[in-house]
Amino acid sequence: MHYQHDSLRAIIWQAGQLQLLDQRLLPHEHTFLVLTEASKVAQAIKDMVVRGAPAIGITAAYGIVLAAQAAYTKAPDQWQTLIQADLQQLAQARPTAVNLVWAIQRLSNCFATITGDPVPVLLAEAQRIHQEDIDANHQMGDLGATVLPATNCRVLTHCNAGALATGGYGTALGVIRSAYAKSQISQVYADETRPWLQGARLTAWELLQDQIPVTLLADGAAAALMKKQQIDWVIVGSDRITANGDVANKIGTYSLAVLARYHGVKFMVVAPTSTVDMTLTDGQQIIIEQRAKEEVLTLAGKPIAATGADAWNPSFDVTPAELVDVIVTEKGVVKQPNSEKMAIMMKG
Amino acid sequence: MHYQHDSLRAIIWQAGQLQLLDQRLLPHEHTFLVLTEASKVAQAIKDMVVRGAPAIGITAAYGIVLAAQAAYTKAPDQWQTLIQADLQQLAQARPTAVNLVWAIQRLSNCFATITGDPVPVLLAEAQRIHQEDIDANHQMGDLGATVLPATNCRVLTHCNAGALATGGYGTALGVIRSAYAKSQISQVYADETRPWLQGARLTAWELLQDQIPVTLLADGAAAALMKKQQIDWVIVGSDRITANGDVANKIGTYSLAVLARYHGVKFMVVAPTSTVDMTLTDGQQIIIEQRAKEEVLTLAGKPIAATGADAWNPSFDVTPAELVDVIVTEKGVVKQPNSEKMAIMMKG
Repeated sequence: MHYQHDSLRAIIWQAGQLQLLDQRLLPHEHTFLVLTEASKVAQAIKDMVVRGAPAIGITAAYGIVLAAQAAYTKAPDQWQTLIQADLQQLAQARPTAVNLVWAIQRLSNCFATITGDPVPVLLAEAQRIHQEDIDANHQMGDLGATVLPATNCRVLTHCNAGALATGGYGTALGVIRSAYAKSQISQVYADETRPWLQGARLTAWELLQDQIPVTLLADGAAAALMKKQQIDWVIVGSDRITANGDVANKIGTYSLAVLARYHGVKFMVVAPTSTVDMTLTDGQQIIIEQRAKEEVLTLAGKPIAATGADAWNPSFDVTPAELVDVIVTEKGVVKQPNSEKMAIMMKG
Repeated sequence: MHYQHDSLRAIIWQAGQLQLLDQRLLPHEHTFLVLTEASKVAQAIKDMVVRGAPAIGITAAYGIVLAAQAAYTKAPDQWQTLIQADLQQLAQARPTAVNLVWAIQRLSNCFATITGDPVPVLLAEAQRIHQEDIDANHQMGDLGATVLPATNCRVLTHCNAGALATGGYGTALGVIRSAYAKSQISQVYADETRPWLQGARLTAWELLQDQIPVTLLADGAAAALMKKQQIDWVIVGSDRITANGDVANKIGTYSLAVLARYHGVKFMVVAPTSTVDMTLTDGQQIIIEQRAKEEVLTLAGKPIAATGADAWNPSFDVTPAELVDVIVTEKGVVKQPNSEKMAIMMKG
């Protein structure tokens, strides 16, 4: 499928190798890492060469293709046994995004039918996951835009839920792209999103590549901007949505949800159904990744904090469903999400 | 007066010169700038060599001493006329903190009584302002501590309202110092406070110098910490408090106040009466300084954001009185502040 408004790709499969745009170096360096081993793929996910729930799912799928390629070369009869360690390593690369285990499960489901070389089958499935994600993003972009006002909408986003975080086009940024193309949006604000600065480094870069102007702000400034009535909608992605509509997303998202409700600002979450984990009843069951304290204590490798200071660095927080106005998946729009509405949407 | 728990000094008058600890270089470099001209003092305030409302008031007072010294040397009969330009430059160095104009007014009030060399009189007044601020901080420390629970209190502070922001000891950090010395506090959290990182660079450094352990967090993480019921009190300083108890303080403070109210966390503002501006009826009248976009777009001189991104960088926000549980000044504790209670406190 070809889209009128295509966007950059950060995950490329070419000639039996996986190329990942190194997002740690953006926006100043634009370098692809070339990976040929599943363990290196797991490490790249852990180190945030690639990040964003859908993107790490797709990356893990290609990682399994690399694992199968190596295992089948080594022992054609035992490749399924040989790749188990790689599967586990990939699954454990990061804990919060459910897309990782979801993608691994999708590829594992193919194993039983494979005879002979597993690579063509698994690669086809990985590419299907990749393309489905792009398609879902365009569908969500269109669906999300229908919920926004027809003109003059001022939106605030957090972290990067864009092309870089997905197979392409983006979830939250997909909605912003679609609505901007339809002249619905007059202003895009982005939280810089400490500690990793995804907003400043990735979201601003991505939007500017598409000629969408963007204004950055310190995370602590969002409340003052809402008080000035400069924001109509907060639009974010998600790393895991539970059966009741609770939403895990980048640290700072819950803060925005509370502030949005207080100021009468609407709050939209955009994520494909591969991010919905119907096995968890609510957000308290989601494992929140704690990352290295150095992410807070240093910046670009340089210490910023006083020596001896401790740090608390959860990578995600959980926004309860009651603070979410709309969840958009490729299957539909769920307003005021709860368990019943989520179940109906997932079946639809 | 000597205090049992003294703390560092960032503003020192010695041998006719003003020494300012360069807070832009902390915590890694500990360098004093030596200033002998009022215009350089105004520039230092503007550039945030020194920051914090009480500290810039004291600094401006010493700046006037330097101005008078130069003017009296040049033309003993016309020094009062000659220093007007310096007074204006100092008053306009930064717009939000009322302590700056308050201190300039205090020194200007001495002019009428001066015959001969103005320096001894003005220096004595500047030193009185400095010492009164230190005394006020110790009084506020004691008063604020009486409001906190007797044991096991977990506090969160924002920006730096410490010895570095005042004549010494600090306002919010004065309360934390006093309460910590009385074993009331079990945990101190500090927002890193983007964009200038006063929390990471200054507050953590200051507290660690006093052997008070501190845990830093990204500004966006405070809400998640409150939700985990890890915070009992938010304690902050102020740059200007209006007659009704509205509070201007570092950007991000208003965000914390909304989040605190939502989570049932108490919110305390600590500031001397020199920060209270009874001429403004409410916070809407406070001029909020907009600082350079580069503070958000760069870090330590290096660009962090994509080229072409815009930024919104207000240095302060306003927290309405209804979100403030307690204002502590050296004259007393005002619970649920309003115009009447503020007026009574100021007279007391």
